Amino acid sequence: LIENGFVDWIVSTGANLYHDLHFALGDSLHSARPDLDDTELRRNGIIRIYDILLASDALLSADAFVRSTVRAPIFQRGMGTAEFHYLLGRVVTELEDRPGTGRTGPRTSLLAAAWRAEVPIFTPSPGDSSIGMNIAAEALQGNRLTLDVAADVNASAALVFDAKQRGGKSGVMILGGGAPKNFLLQTEPHLQQVLGLPEAGHDYFLQLTDARPDTGGLSGATASEAVTWGKLDPTLLPQTVTCYVDSTIGLPVITAYAFRKRQPRPLKRLYTRLAGCVDRLSATVRAASN
Amino acid sequence: LIENGFVDWIVSTGANLYHDLHFALGDSLHSARPDLDDTELRRNGIIRIYDILLASDALLSADAFVRSTVRAPIFQRGMGTAEFHYLLGRVVTELEDRPGTGRTGPRTSLLAAAWRAEVPIFTPSPGDSSIGMNIAAEALQGNRLTLDVAADVNASAALVFDAKQRGGKSGVMILGGGAPKNFLLQTEPHLQQVLGLPEAGHDYFLQLTDARPDTGGLSGATASEAVTWGKLDPTLLPQTVTCYVDSTIGLPVITAYAFRKRQPRPLKRLYTRLAGCVDRLSATVRAASN
Amino acid sequence: LIENGFVDWIVSTGANLYHDLHFALGDSLHSARPDLDDTELRRNGIIRIYDILLASDALLSADAFVRSTVRAPIFQRGMGTAEFHYLLGRVVTELEDRPGTGRTGPRTSLLAAAWRAEVPIFTPSPGDSSIGMNIAAEALQGNRLTLDVAADVNASAALVFDAKQRGGKSGVMILGGGAPKNFLLQTEPHLQQVLGLPEAGHDYFLQLTDARPDTGGLSGATASEAVTWGKLDPTLLPQTVTCYVDSTIGLPVITAYAFRKRQPRPLKRLYTRLAGCVDRLSATVRAASN
Amino acid sequence: LIENGFVDWIVSTGANLYHDLHFALGDSLHSARPDLDDTELRRNGIIRIYDILLASDALLSADAFVRSTVRAPIFQRGMGTAEFHYLLGRVVTELEDRPGTGRTGPRTSLLAAAWRAEVPIFTPSPGDSSIGMNIAAEALQGNRLTLDVAADVNASAALVFDAKQRGGKSGVMILGGGAPKNFLLQTEPHLQQVLGLPEAGHDYFLQLTDARPDTGGLSGATASEAVTWGKLDPTLLPQTVTCYVDSTIGLPVITAYAFRKRQPRPLKRLYTRLAGCVDRLSATVRAASN
Repeated sequence: LIENGFVDWIVSTGANLYHDLHFALGDSLHSARPDLDDTELRRNGIIRIYDILLASDALLSADAFVRSTVRAPIFQRGMGTAEFHYLLGRVVTELEDRPGTGRTGPRTSLLAAAWRAEVPIFTPSPGDSSIGMNIAAEALQGNRLTLDVAADVNASAALVFDAKQRGGKSGVMILGGGAPKNFLLQTEPHLQQVLGLPEAGHDYFLQLTDARPDTGGLSGATASEAVTWGKLDPTLLPQTVTCYVDSTIGLPVITAYAFRKRQPRPLKRLYTRLAGCVDRLSATVRAASN
Repeated sequence: LIENGFVDWIVSTGANLYHDLHFALGDSLHSARPDLDDTELRRNGIIRIYDILLASDALLSADAFVRSTVRAPIFQRGMGTAEFHYLLGRVVTELEDRPGTGRTGPRTSLLAAAWRAEVPIFTPSPGDSSIGMNIAAEALQGNRLTLDVAADVNASAALVFDAKQRGGKSGVMILGGGAPKNFLLQTEPHLQQVLGLPEAGHDYFLQLTDARPDTGGLSGATASEAVTWGKLDPTLLPQTVTCYVDSTIGLPVITAYAFRKRQPRPLKRLYTRLAGCVDRLSATVRAASN
Repeated sequence: LIENGFVDWIVSTGANLYHDLHFALGDSLHSARPDLDDTELRRNGIIRIYDILLASDALLSADAFVRSTVRAPIFQRGMGTAEFHYLLGRVVTELEDRPGTGRTGPRTSLLAAAWRAEVPIFTPSPGDSSIGMNIAAEALQGNRLTLDVAADVNASAALVFDAKQRGGKSGVMILGGGAPKNFLLQTEPHLQQVLGLPEAGHDYFLQLTDARPDTGGLSGATASEAVTWGKLDPTLLPQTVTCYVDSTIGLPVITAYAFRKRQPRPLKRLYTRLAGCVDRLSATVRAASN
Repeated sequence: LIENGFVDWIVSTGANLYHDLHFALGDSLHSARPDLDDTELRRNGIIRIYDILLASDALLSADAFVRSTVRAPIFQRGMGTAEFHYLLGRVVTELEDRPGTGRTGPRTSLLAAAWRAEVPIFTPSPGDSSIGMNIAAEALQGNRLTLDVAADVNASAALVFDAKQRGGKSGVMILGGGAPKNFLLQTEPHLQQVLGLPEAGHDYFLQLTDARPDTGGLSGATASEAVTWGKLDPTLLPQTVTCYVDSTIGLPVITAYAFRKRQPRPLKRLYTRLAGCVDRLSATVRAASN
C-alpha cells in the first residue's frame, strides 16, 4: 500500500514499529495456537503475542540494534517521532538492502518502506514499547535524544491543514483504536478548538475495530460522536464506515479491493514537505494571534 | 481511594486528566442517552463523550487554563509527566480550594487529590489530549516546555525496582487497556530485558476490561501472555484476575468492597521519593555495565 | 426475586433448568479457573461450563431423574412447556423438601421456587438441553410426552394480552439474548402482526447483555430496533435501558437495589390463570375473525 | 454451497427461514445505515433488522403464505422440523419456479435449495419466529400441526451416528451461537451420555462467532470446553478453529476459498435417508437396553 501511493502518512504504536525490526534483522516470528502453556514458554525463552511466537533473543537483538543506532551523533538532540522514525528507517533500509543476512526476504520492513516512500510515521506514545525503553536506557547512560511529542502534535495537524489549504481532502483510515486513533483524529480539534483556525473536519472516515461505542472510550467512539468534536465534517457523516472486524481479516480484503479497483498513485513524499507545512501553520497561527 | 492510601501511583491517558479540569473549573458535565443527534449537538456547541455531554465553552475554559498555567517560568524546561502533573495538580488544588467559584463541590478533582497525596501520575502519550494540544500550541508561540517520555519510562520502572529492593510487592490494577496498560506493565521488561536487572515480574494483576485476547492487541492480552514477557511472576499466575466488565460498574463494586474489608493505609507519598528512586536505579545500571 | 413477587413469568433455556436439578439432587457444582486442561478433565469425567465444574455423574443422576419423572402417567400426552415445568417443579419441590438428602441446602432450586410461587416457566427450545435429550430418549422407548411449542407461543402472548386488557403494563427484563429474548419479545408481534389485535408494545425494557447491535442478530438488537416491530411502545423508548454487563455482575446489583428500594409484592400466581388467559385470547381472536 | 454438495444438513433459527420466504415471494429487502429514526420507521410501516429494512407488508405476505400452506391436509399432524421444512420447501420451490412473479430472481431461496438437494433443515426453537407464530395462530383456529422437537433431537443424532457407523467423519461448521449451536453439538452427548452409545465426538469444528468464552454461555464456549462434554473428539482438538468474525464477512471468504480449492461433491441427499437413520438408531438403543 505504501509503495503504491495509497498511504500518505501513518500513526502507529511503538510496538508495531519495534516488532517490524525483526523482519529487517532476519529474526523469525512464528504462528501458533493461542492456548499454549505460558509458564513453559517463559522457561524456554519464548515470547508470545497472542498467536505469534518469537525467541527472546530476537528481542535482545532488536534492542541492541536500537541502542547502537541511537548512539550515533545525529540522534543526540530533541526531535519529533516523524524525524526519529525517518532516521531509524534509513538505517533499517541499509540493513534490508545488505545482501545475505539470512533475513526472511528483501523489503519486508514497514519502516524501510516508509523511508523509501518518504511517508512520515508518528507515534503518540514514544516511551511505550521497547524502542522507547531502549532510548530510556541510553538516557541513563547520558544519551541526549529526546522525543518531542508537542512537535508531533503540530506536525500532524500541519499535514491536514496543508491538504485543506491546497483544496484537497483529508481521509482517515483507522485500524483498531487507542492512542493512534486519538492522535490521528485530534488533528482537527487542534486546528479548530486549540489553534482557532477555520476548518470543518476530516472528509473520509473508515474504521476497522473491535471496540464498541458503549464502552465509552475513544477506541469505540463513533464517527457520529467525532462530529461533535469537529473531527469530521458533519455533512459527510453518512458516508463514514465503521466495520467491526479484526484488522487481520479486514485489511487484506480492503487491500485486494483497492488494488483491483484503483491504479497506483504517485507518491506524495510528505516527509520532505513536513517542515514547510509546520512553518506555514506556525506563521498562520502567529498572524491570527496578532 | 487516593486519599485512603489504596493508590500508590497512576498511569492515565491525557484525556482523563484534561476532563478532570472541568470539575475544578466549575464546568458541568451532563449524563445523557448515547443516541442523540450529533449534527444537532455540533450545531449547538455541545460535545459528546458517549453518554456524557459538555459545552464546548468548557473545553475553551480548560484550554485557557492549561495555556496560562504552562506559561509560568517553572514550566519553561523539559520534564517528565509525573513532574508536569504534579505542578499542574498544585495549580488545580489552589483553584479547588478557592471559595465560591461555583464549581460542583470541593475536592472533586483527581489531579488535586493526587497532588495532596503526592501520588505520581504518568501519561504515556502526553501529546494526545487537549493538554498536549495546548502545550503544542504554546510551543508554536515559543514556550519551552517539553515532556520527556524517556524520563517517565525510567521513573516508573524505578518505582517498581525500589519496591522490590525493599522486599515489597508490586501489584497492578488495570482499568481498560491501551497505552496506559502497556506503560504500566512494561516496567518489568524495562528492568529485566532492557536494563538487565534480575527481577521476576509484578506480583498482583487485576484487570477490568472489555478487550478480549483474540483481538491480538495488548489491551486484551492475558496475564498468562504477560508471563512470557516477564511482566508477571509466573508462580503467581493462578491468583491473577481478569474481569470483563465496564470500569464504571466494576470499580465502584471493588471500591465498596475495599472500604468494607480494609482500613485506610498510610500514604506512601511516592512523588517525594521519585527522584531518589531514579538515582538508585541509574546507579545500579551504571554499576552493572562497568 | 421469585419469592418476593418481583418475577411474574420466566422464559429460560432448557440448560438453565436442567442444571438447576443438581441443586435439588444434592450434586455439587464447583467454581474454577476457565483455563484448565480440558482433555485431562474429560479423562477424569469432569464437565466444564466456562468457570464451573461438575462431575459427569451429576449429569447421569439428573438424566435418571428426568427420565423416571417423565415416565409417570401424567406426562403421557402433549403439553406446553409451562405445564411441563410446573409438573417437573412439583417433583423437584418434593425432592427439595425431603429431609437429609445431603443436598447443598433447602430451597436452592429455581424450578421449585417457581412451582411454589406458581410462576410459569417457558422454554422456546425444549429439545435443546439434557431435559430435551432425555425426553427424546424416552420417546425412542415409547414415551408419549410431546412438548407443544405452538401452545407456548399462544400462552405467553395471552399473559401479555391479559395484563394489557386489565389496564396493566408489561415489562420485560432480559438477561442475555438468544431464543429466550426473541420468545419474550415476540409476544407483541404475535398479538399485533399475526393475530391482528390492537396493541402498542411492551411498556418497560431492561436488558443486560454482552451482545452488540452491530452483529446483526436478535441478541444484540436494540430497544429502538424492537420499536419497528411493535415489540415496544415507541412513546416509552427513552426510558428503556440496555446495560452491557455480564448478568452475574449486573443481576446481583439490581437485586440488591430492588430489595433496598421496594417492598415485596403479592405473588401474581400466573400459572393458575394461564388457561383462562389463553381461552380469552382464543375467544377474542375467533370473534375478530368472524 | 448446498447445490455443490458442501452442506449435508442444517440447523437454523426459524427467523432465518421465515425471512428467506421474502425472496421466493418477490418482496424486497433493503440495505441501510443502522442509525435511522426507528419511531419514524414504525410510523411508516418499515421493519428494521440492524442494517436491513423491509416493509411490514412483506411480513403480512409471508404470514399469509405460511398460514395458507399449513392449512393443507398434509400438515394436519405432528412432525419433526426437518419434515416440516421439507414440505414447506416444496411449496417454496413451486413458488420460485413459477415464472413472472416479480421476485428478485430464480433460485434465491434457501428453503428451496435445501428441498432440491434434499438437505434436512432443523430448527431447535420452532415456536420462535413468525413461522412458529403463524402455526400457533392457526392452532387457535383448530389446525392440528404440531412440531415434535424430541423427534428432531433423535433425528439429528441419528445422522451423526449413521455417518460414524459407516466409518465416516462428522464435522460441524457453526455460524454464530445460540440454540442452533447447542442443538448441533448436543448430538454427541445425546448419543453418549443419554443413549449410552460408544462415540468419541465430532471430528471437525469450525466456528465463526462474535461470542467470547468469558460470557459463560454456550454461544462463546470453546471447542476445548466442548471436549469435556464429549462433543468433540479430544485427539482432534488442535485442528479445531474458532474465528471471531462476523459471519457476513467470514462466510464469503470461506466460500470463495472452498470453491477455489475443491471440486463440487455429490449430493448426500440425507433427507431421503433420515427415517432409516432414526430406525437404526432406535433399534440400536432398544437392543442395548435389553
